[in-house]
Amino acid sequence: MNAATGAAVIGLDLGGTKIAAALFAADGTVLDRHTRPTPARDGAAAVLDALAAAAAEVDPGGLASALGIAAAGVVDPRSGMVTSATDSISGWAGTALGAGLADRTGLPVACDNDVRATAGPELAALADRHGSLLFAAVGTGVGGALAVDGQMLHGASGIAGHLGHLPSAEATGLPCTCGATGHLEVIASGPGITAHYERLTGAPAGRLETVADRAAQGEQAAVHAITTGARAAGRVLGGLANALGPDRVVIGGGVPRIGALYGDALAAAFAAELMPPLRGLTPVPPLFGHDAAVLGAAALTTTLPLHHPGALR
Amino acid sequence: MNAATGAAVIGLDLGGTKIAAALFAADGTVLDRHTRPTPARDGAAAVLDALAAAAAEVDPGGLASALGIAAAGVVDPRSGMVTSATDSISGWAGTALGAGLADRTGLPVACDNDVRATAGPELAALADRHGSLLFAAVGTGVGGALAVDGQMLHGASGIAGHLGHLPSAEATGLPCTCGATGHLEVIASGPGITAHYERLTGAPAGRLETVADRAAQGEQAAVHAITTGARAAGRVLGGLANALGPDRVVIGGGVPRIGALYGDALAAAFAAELMPPLRGLTPVPPLFGHDAAVLGAAALTTTLPLHHPGALR
Repeated sequence: MNAATGAAVIGLDLGGTKIAAALFAADGTVLDRHTRPTPARDGAAAVLDALAAAAAEVDPGGLASALGIAAAGVVDPRSGMVTSATDSISGWAGTALGAGLADRTGLPVACDNDVRATAGPELAALADRHGSLLFAAVGTGVGGALAVDGQMLHGASGIAGHLGHLPSAEATGLPCTCGATGHLEVIASGPGITAHYERLTGAPAGRLETVADRAAQGEQAAVHAITTGARAAGRVLGGLANALGPDRVVIGGGVPRIGALYGDALAAAFAAELMPPLRGLTPVPPLFGHDAAVLGAAALTTTLPLHHPGALR
Repeated sequence: MNAATGAAVIGLDLGGTKIAAALFAADGTVLDRHTRPTPARDGAAAVLDALAAAAAEVDPGGLASALGIAAAGVVDPRSGMVTSATDSISGWAGTALGAGLADRTGLPVACDNDVRATAGPELAALADRHGSLLFAAVGTGVGGALAVDGQMLHGASGIAGHLGHLPSAEATGLPCTCGATGHLEVIASGPGITAHYERLTGAPAGRLETVADRAAQGEQAAVHAITTGARAAGRVLGGLANALGPDRVVIGGGVPRIGALYGDALAAAFAAELMPPLRGLTPVPPLFGHDAAVLGAAALTTTLPLHHPGALR
């Protein structure tokens, strides 16, 4: 995992509801795992304390030489700061994540947002080390990670990869969580598809799984809401492929798991957008499953700047 | 210009109608200039010969230590190949641009497409060497160049920066030159705005300047065609800013020169798309004028792989 030292590395994944931790040996083997709830309503210091406790839980013997964290929110790996965040974790925006966690654990810390961390091993798996990756995560929101010419993109304030806030013709006029209107996330995320179904029918569905069940039973409004969301995502991602030239396009997150109705509509819309040099490029599912975020978090320690204990003092 | 050697560098700009050449001293001063027509109907070898002749014209004394070329078409700087191209230059796709020009001039050659080359000095001018740039060129097409975290993006087959082939709600259903439908270029390029005006009125306009003149006289269809194109560009570029996190957004090309009606509509639509961390980001005109392409071409020799004479033999 950490090629320079051969030592073990801790990977942490911070979400709005839970913290996952794993200790990886130098060869990538998982030595220990731990999960605990995120104290999301208790403020940033409590979250940093819980992250440090999770790290201690998987590495009681102090084997680790570094720690990588994949975190919710917009994270700037160079400054180690949480640039902005939704209110899923109280007071999270403005947190000195890298320095705060380095101080609590005594370890050098690399940090990035959860989607970029998860996409890192997908980039590393490309045959060409100058290769490019478009990674979309379609779930309760639409996020992503972009890597071009072998480099994961971060952008100003660490914002690169916010694919849900590209405009979508299917979302025209609908208000987005970011304050704008007409963004992809509004129509293509799980809640977006569910809300679209509810607008079409006037009937409550509540959860995407309910809409998927009704589509499987042949209900046309449910089919329409799902395929509209999928088509919107496929169009935007196909256009973005034209602008970036990826070698591989990965669609992750929970929404694609509802099945082929979704995946087929997305793939068809994606293919229809592509310029001639990209024809044949097809979206694929992620290579890595359950462990992707903690694996990617640990791998950040080899690719990103490290934040060291004591930097805040 | 070439920091490593202090020697002079030749910059070439190849367009569909003309070749521009300049010899730059080590301090960036222009020592000589030359322009000649592109033999666009005579095949790739004739174009390479003309490029070499233009280089010889500006550097009869053999002062140059390297040559950079900014070329029309999709260019892969690593392979030095023209990956694909429109028929504005016959037989241009598949040309070994780097090696062919190195053989003809005896100089090491760096090559890239014209928009990326033009954008290079804009990137170099950013205060932060890890900064990010979104450069759009709106003219007879809609192209661009993207740089993130201080690196110009190339992507698979050198395709990165094709901003005209992102989907636009304003272009829904309209056929694009690439074979898809609904792409930004169809509604936002100069010919796209002109064609939109002609669809609205049934009256021929022929040139964007005619539409701009009629808009200046208060003709509503002309105003509508121009502001629709500007709004389409602003929306797509604003969404792309959310996905990439640029520090600076430059709108170049001929279309913005039609005036404030265009620029104001583009800026308003752009601003309306931005996520909170990017608010305040405003599109600006290019820093560099007439010499931008040859200046950027010469600068490629310091940032890109060089193709050396004899590699084809």
